[in-house]
Amino acid sequence: MADGKVRIYNMRFCPYAQRAILVAEAKSVPYDVVNINLITKPEWIFGKNPMGKVPTLELPSGDVLYESLIVADYLDDAYPGRKLNSSDPLRRAQDRILIENFGTVTSIGSFYKLSISRPHTDEQSALLQEIRKGLAPFERELTQRGTKFFGGADAPGMVDYMIWPWVERMSLFKVAFPDLSDYQNDKKENPKLEQWRQAMKEDPAVKSYYLTPEQHFHFAASYLQGEMPDYDCLEELNSKI
Amino acid sequence: MADGKVRIYNMRFCPYAQRAILVAEAKSVPYDVVNINLITKPEWIFGKNPMGKVPTLELPSGDVLYESLIVADYLDDAYPGRKLNSSDPLRRAQDRILIENFGTVTSIGSFYKLSISRPHTDEQSALLQEIRKGLAPFERELTQRGTKFFGGADAPGMVDYMIWPWVERMSLFKVAFPDLSDYQNDKKENPKLEQWRQAMKEDPAVKSYYLTPEQHFHFAASYLQGEMPDYDCLEELNSKI
Repeated sequence: MADGKVRIYNMRFCPYAQRAILVAEAKSVPYDVVNINLITKPEWIFGKNPMGKVPTLELPSGDVLYESLIVADYLDDAYPGRKLNSSDPLRRAQDRILIENFGTVTSIGSFYKLSISRPHTDEQSALLQEIRKGLAPFERELTQRGTKFFGGADAPGMVDYMIWPWVERMSLFKVAFPDLSDYQNDKKENPKLEQWRQAMKEDPAVKSYYLTPEQHFHFAASYLQGEMPDYDCLEELNSKI
Repeated sequence: MADGKVRIYNMRFCPYAQRAILVAEAKSVPYDVVNINLITKPEWIFGKNPMGKVPTLELPSGDVLYESLIVADYLDDAYPGRKLNSSDPLRRAQDRILIENFGTVTSIGSFYKLSISRPHTDEQSALLQEIRKGLAPFERELTQRGTKFFGGADAPGMVDYMIWPWVERMSLFKVAFPDLSDYQNDKKENPKLEQWRQAMKEDPAVKSYYLTPEQHFHFAASYLQGEMPDYDCLEELNSKI
């Protein structure tokens, strides 16, 4: 990395790692990506991050950082360009509380499980309720803020990018169950969030890394088969187009 | 709070709430404390913090913040006085990783359980090992930094205050088992941390809120009896002196 780029250790379908990519894109941070297999992890990743998780960020200096929110804050603090975190301490703290509260939605295992079988078991129905409950404060917050994005009128900020990876994946429910009205009422239940989702899809950083519901669904299905997820499926899926 | 003070909803023996108090003290933020009973929580706390947890910070504006690290960052960002977080983005990110990693040590239930019965069960021995393992990176880090505090040569910074509440409580093991050499070898095993601990005990913020090992032990014992912890024991203990 003598070229001054940072390196993001990544897994293409990991929503946490996507947080780092979105921030790097939004801030035009020069970066390379190294995708790793999270099932059979390469031994060397533990030399960089004792948890062996993604995202892991390696700086040109050789220093290594991890944990998606820490990596995101670092990129925002250390690089020029528009600031994703608010410069107002109160707004920044409120934003961080929102992001932490999104934790009720971020269990990707739950997401994948919901997309794969029906009729739903009681456990699945409970998961879906959990996700719905987790989204409600975001609908309220967007309404209160009265802006297009959580980060303001013009462009997404830190909250927007930190929650986006899971929202992008929610559409896989509709792929899984096109006839199930449970998954069709976003506009009615969360009209502000639905407008926000449409606006986010037009953001250049989001666009640059966007996967379709079908692509997420394909990966989810391979993930749930229990052995080796189809990490390389994008190439195959793209070649079909 | 027309007087411009912040209000910290607190429980006197809660290590997370102690984080907020230590930062307020270190920065000379004017504050009041409202202690609440965490077993039979007053209904109104949920109106301020949906989790009903401490610390919860109420600002003179009426805005409310919670989550100990968010509250600590807010107080550091919003108030004048020495900065506890580093202004260097890399150091700040590294500090945050350290604090998050301390999570392996912060299960206070484990702490209390360790102090109360012997000989140790296998579960307790495992907990003790877990705590030991959690401390090792901090000994290494202090050695590498070569400073008296994690925050530098002169005064504690954010890492110091965020981990202190649990270190203060570690001494309760020695009260519980004065003859047990397992708990007597801090100086041998973690010499830097032991020097740091002694220096921290002299810090004005730490001193202002310090409880003795005996006081922590008394509370732990009441907590483990399973019904109502002895929240008001300090008054009684102090009157015995």
